[in-house]
Amino acid sequence: MALDALLSRCRAWKHRHLLGMKDLSKEDILRVLSVAEACDSLRDEHPLKGRRLFNFFVEPSTRTKTSFALAARRLGGEVIDFSPSASSLTKGESLKDTARTIESMGVTFTVIRHGASGAPHFLSRLVESSVINAGDGANEHPTQALLDLLTMKMRLGRVTGLKVALVGDIAHSRVARSNLWALKKLGNDVTLVGPPTLVPRDLDAAITSDLDRALPRQDVVMMLRLQLERMQSGLFPSAAEYVRFFGLTRERVAALKKGAIIMHPGPMNRGLEISAEAADHPRSVVLHQVANGVLVRMAVLLLLSQVAR
Amino acid sequence: MALDALLSRCRAWKHRHLLGMKDLSKEDILRVLSVAEACDSLRDEHPLKGRRLFNFFVEPSTRTKTSFALAARRLGGEVIDFSPSASSLTKGESLKDTARTIESMGVTFTVIRHGASGAPHFLSRLVESSVINAGDGANEHPTQALLDLLTMKMRLGRVTGLKVALVGDIAHSRVARSNLWALKKLGNDVTLVGPPTLVPRDLDAAITSDLDRALPRQDVVMMLRLQLERMQSGLFPSAAEYVRFFGLTRERVAALKKGAIIMHPGPMNRGLEISAEAADHPRSVVLHQVANGVLVRMAVLLLLSQVAR
Amino acid sequence: MALDALLSRCRAWKHRHLLGMKDLSKEDILRVLSVAEACDSLRDEHPLKGRRLFNFFVEPSTRTKTSFALAARRLGGEVIDFSPSASSLTKGESLKDTARTIESMGVTFTVIRHGASGAPHFLSRLVESSVINAGDGANEHPTQALLDLLTMKMRLGRVTGLKVALVGDIAHSRVARSNLWALKKLGNDVTLVGPPTLVPRDLDAAITSDLDRALPRQDVVMMLRLQLERMQSGLFPSAAEYVRFFGLTRERVAALKKGAIIMHPGPMNRGLEISAEAADHPRSVVLHQVANGVLVRMAVLLLLSQVAR
Repeated sequence: MALDALLSRCRAWKHRHLLGMKDLSKEDILRVLSVAEACDSLRDEHPLKGRRLFNFFVEPSTRTKTSFALAARRLGGEVIDFSPSASSLTKGESLKDTARTIESMGVTFTVIRHGASGAPHFLSRLVESSVINAGDGANEHPTQALLDLLTMKMRLGRVTGLKVALVGDIAHSRVARSNLWALKKLGNDVTLVGPPTLVPRDLDAAITSDLDRALPRQDVVMMLRLQLERMQSGLFPSAAEYVRFFGLTRERVAALKKGAIIMHPGPMNRGLEISAEAADHPRSVVLHQVANGVLVRMAVLLLLSQVAR
Repeated sequence: MALDALLSRCRAWKHRHLLGMKDLSKEDILRVLSVAEACDSLRDEHPLKGRRLFNFFVEPSTRTKTSFALAARRLGGEVIDFSPSASSLTKGESLKDTARTIESMGVTFTVIRHGASGAPHFLSRLVESSVINAGDGANEHPTQALLDLLTMKMRLGRVTGLKVALVGDIAHSRVARSNLWALKKLGNDVTLVGPPTLVPRDLDAAITSDLDRALPRQDVVMMLRLQLERMQSGLFPSAAEYVRFFGLTRERVAALKKGAIIMHPGPMNRGLEISAEAADHPRSVVLHQVANGVLVRMAVLLLLSQVAR
Repeated sequence: MALDALLSRCRAWKHRHLLGMKDLSKEDILRVLSVAEACDSLRDEHPLKGRRLFNFFVEPSTRTKTSFALAARRLGGEVIDFSPSASSLTKGESLKDTARTIESMGVTFTVIRHGASGAPHFLSRLVESSVINAGDGANEHPTQALLDLLTMKMRLGRVTGLKVALVGDIAHSRVARSNLWALKKLGNDVTLVGPPTLVPRDLDAAITSDLDRALPRQDVVMMLRLQLERMQSGLFPSAAEYVRFFGLTRERVAALKKGAIIMHPGPMNRGLEISAEAADHPRSVVLHQVANGVLVRMAVLLLLSQVAR
């Protein structure tokens, strides 16, 4: 697709920030996916020439930060990297000062990852650049949900009417939360699977702790990363117990419906929530998810740049 | 301004290194400011194409390092980043070896920040690239003084005949020192304000510990960052005491002369040397200082590149 | 040389990875050197445009990482940097997942430095990009040997029939090992000099612990970095003893054959394995080694790109 046609498809976009899937309509989401698919054929086009992205990661990250940087550079933009230790930014005030300081050097996009839910929203009210939430506490991680949807679209041909299971520690997962909002808006059937202590009751989805029963019905099985620090918290008995009830073992892969795909946001704990066989199985699309992450972030930057200062 | 006209204005420059404001004449300083103003209109010009800047920060920094990197890239130059821990560079010899090693890969500018006063001067005698002092101990931080002057020029219309107060821990501040030399050379009236334990007696400026009395006369009030580690040193009683006598509180902002501006080199300790109200006040120019930092560093690179190898 | 002529010289290359000098034939090595020399005259040519290099340094490094980055960028390629703490990558599985994850974003070359011998070989069987060994444990560091050979060729006019002494801690040195394989393949006469505890008996080279006797015969004296952590291991008595028997002191420099050169892979321990006088002596080529490192790595990237995906 020519760049002009692609940009004209971006023009209807109205949001200055991307803070969460909760704020996006069904049409918004489909527009991101459509622009992302078109981005794959861009070559040597630099619609973001002269624009800068500030990669502000207060929580450590490798893949997400790199993915945003590559997305910006593929569109001709520049990247400013800053990964302070959280301890050097203890107060909200200094978060604001840091963002505004870098912004003063000329910044169009501020991509922020922060351990506190709502930090990107707080920042969006204080700065002039377009704020993109790259993960805030246990709240949202919207570009992850978008890349997951793009992967479903590419592999399954649609992003509606699917049966999707999110498996694991739902309560502490921003990936689960962003995916849930998005999947429901698009008319999918979502089941949350996990130990009762790790699955909130108040979310708009079916809930079960019986993975084996839920598995054969799903088009998509999305395994969530188990935060190892939760292991000591007494929320569930032991790693072996967790694997027995909620791990995607070789046997469970064999029980999947024909055509179903295995997803994981990474990084994977091989041998814990996902076995090595499942991770490397032909049905696993984890590497496609990563590749699609760059496309989705290119799309987000192009769309926001219609509204950005 | 066309690039050619800009470059011709650079030709009279004679210094191979920028080590401190002490080494610059009044004419030198005015030339930097004039080139910096012209740099703002450069677009898609790459006079530093093929040249590399080595960002060698032995003391941590965010804004200064980023500012130098942006300045180089806006002129088409490339940046090599290196921020070792100070402990991995304990001896002067290894400082030299590191700089010369990186230089061997092809470097035009070595920007150095170091905790020891005189480290850039030491380095300038051992390497072939142009050395730029980005802060050495409590000695100098010349590009900070230049960006402060540019901000005064843009906001107050002149850099001579001004009344300027530098407030806080003068003794340990390279920002104060560089500004003092520069302001005096240009014919300004400088007052140093701070606790007697933190203001050296031997500097060429008026001295007072009575901020309230000095404040209404100033065109520029430059608040210095209080190094929190000094708090434990017994040089002054407590944070509350410091704020009471030397903090730029809301009340003190109200006492400022009409048209006076508030400056701070950042990062700010909000609630300590500067209140949130003062930091965000319309008279505060802290974000202009940051933006001007990029322009001043572009000017310095262009000027030095006339003489650099 | 025109880029076309240069690229045609690359076409005979058959290796997808560069894992060690052990895998290269004499012809391979000479080809790298010849392409490297030609790379020096490349200007504004971008044969690697659109290709990305993943700089994956699990062990810290400055010069090697920077050198690979500069080599890629001089050829128009892009660089993704990732230097995790070794502790965050404790299992081989996560090494693989990390490499494949970054690769999924579009990577042509994976440059890896790792504390474990064989890590690059392990990785090369699991990823689709071309793997380049930038140092693995005490095994190999092939681009270091190649840049050392290029320096000998440029300074001595040949890389065969030379007498070369490798001096110091041979047992733990990947630099020594890669140089030894390469030098022997090209028909040079290698002598290993060091304390008996630090020189393996089973290598294909002459061995001695009498540096003073070996020195006057050598065309090349390559001093190895002494790992200071070995000092506590009891493998040799003390720093003073080490200098006395194996340090390249001023007196030993005076005993060198006419035309002999002094090499060191850096970083140098001045005053330990090499004196300041030797390091800065006209016979010392340590800075040429660094400059040649960029050329050799450009050559390696160009050659591998013939075979890379």
